[in-house]
Amino acid sequence: MLQTGRKIDIRKWKADAFESKEDVVAIEEPLQILVQNKAISITMRTPGDDKALALGFLFTEGILKSFSQVEDIIQTDENSVNVLLEESVLQQLPDLQKNFYTTSSCGVCGKSSIDKIYQISSFDIKSNNLKVEAKIFTHLQDRLLNVQTAFQETGGIHAAVLFDAQGNYFYHSEDVGRHNALDKLIGHVMIAGKLPLTKYILLLSGRSSFELIQKAAMAGISVVCAVGAPSSLAVDLAENVGITLLGFLKKTGYNVYSHPERILIDAS
Amino acid sequence: MLQTGRKIDIRKWKADAFESKEDVVAIEEPLQILVQNKAISITMRTPGDDKALALGFLFTEGILKSFSQVEDIIQTDENSVNVLLEESVLQQLPDLQKNFYTTSSCGVCGKSSIDKIYQISSFDIKSNNLKVEAKIFTHLQDRLLNVQTAFQETGGIHAAVLFDAQGNYFYHSEDVGRHNALDKLIGHVMIAGKLPLTKYILLLSGRSSFELIQKAAMAGISVVCAVGAPSSLAVDLAENVGITLLGFLKKTGYNVYSHPERILIDAS
Repeated sequence: MLQTGRKIDIRKWKADAFESKEDVVAIEEPLQILVQNKAISITMRTPGDDKALALGFLFTEGILKSFSQVEDIIQTDENSVNVLLEESVLQQLPDLQKNFYTTSSCGVCGKSSIDKIYQISSFDIKSNNLKVEAKIFTHLQDRLLNVQTAFQETGGIHAAVLFDAQGNYFYHSEDVGRHNALDKLIGHVMIAGKLPLTKYILLLSGRSSFELIQKAAMAGISVVCAVGAPSSLAVDLAENVGITLLGFLKKTGYNVYSHPERILIDAS
Repeated sequence: MLQTGRKIDIRKWKADAFESKEDVVAIEEPLQILVQNKAISITMRTPGDDKALALGFLFTEGILKSFSQVEDIIQTDENSVNVLLEESVLQQLPDLQKNFYTTSSCGVCGKSSIDKIYQISSFDIKSNNLKVEAKIFTHLQDRLLNVQTAFQETGGIHAAVLFDAQGNYFYHSEDVGRHNALDKLIGHVMIAGKLPLTKYILLLSGRSSFELIQKAAMAGISVVCAVGAPSSLAVDLAENVGITLLGFLKKTGYNVYSHPERILIDAS
């Protein structure tokens, strides 16, 4: 169990008076990601799962293609992870040096030119014929609340959760940053040799943005559902790469923004 | 009025059936920020207020000290803004070149070393003796909903709003990214010659993170209240720089995480 919250003393204003009480806030600390001892990015994250976060970040940024290209991952101190890649990988990436300083944990910001924000997934999502019963999705939010322990404690932690096509829980990660929660999840799956995630549904606890859909595409995920709203570019990217994107997921229903053909209506 | 939403056709699952309907999603598009014709960062933003966003970004990143240092701001195309700074400014910043490729719209991610995430505000927030009646804050969320038109339409837009110490609305900005909403707000205020914002309360529609508190500090804001939870580092930074930080703002009350001395309890 990761420690995701920190106790602090606060003052609470209620019924026209202050009371002193203890509260728990989500832990946010910087993580420096190094490759071959060279600092390439900083992300503000909830400590824990740092190696998975670094791997997931390097993979969804298109720098790392598979776990077999990693020679070692070293937690150099509490806020730094150094990833050692095969020399041959570094040689195959002529502009690695240039990109390193422009990429970021957002997958987008920090990059200096617009053509660099698009990464190409090596998985063909359009041909993925996963089917999910329409009713399955309405049960997922309850299951999200069961696993989202850090959110319940702090109100400030995002979750990324994998379910199979029957809605059975498979794995989840939590972080103060929604992009980090997804990178941690993908990093874990990569270490476990489970990529691509062709048979799983990804549930996001917040809104869906361009960067989150891009990360999902990099991992070969074909169905993404979010508790919050999608952005226009999230919808466009999902449509283009072949991802079925749901939003405003509630017990009573949801919206489908792209590729509804994966959702089956029970005719019984 | 900016166009913050785009109409799309969706399928809505409700009461065990799909219906086709029209929905509005928050517009997210990349903006390339250039200085002296050189691309330095990309942020995923809601189009509109692009010049204010670029200015606010450069200011809260510590690159730009005042609006007088700006010679011109040119919208080169729909997704690019070029800021021309005085040559003397560029010469006074020996490591500008180096930092440019490592900064980001997050204010944090994309930076390659931890000491670069802290920017020093040129305003002394600790000595700011602004006082606000405790009850004022409980009225702000209603006022937020009044101005937050894009959120109501799309459910996917953040707002940053300024109120005076009596709770009167002063100005607000909206964006798909919470950091961009604040940068747009600060950029506007900068153009209007209203910095530092020593007399205003900042209201954030979401959670408060390290980066948002840092941006508020750069603008000289001494009271920040957020509808959502703060992170641990947001609380630490607010405590250290002298910002009064509130969270979980509701009609019925709120939590105070740092510097409660600015909040007055009406003794009448």
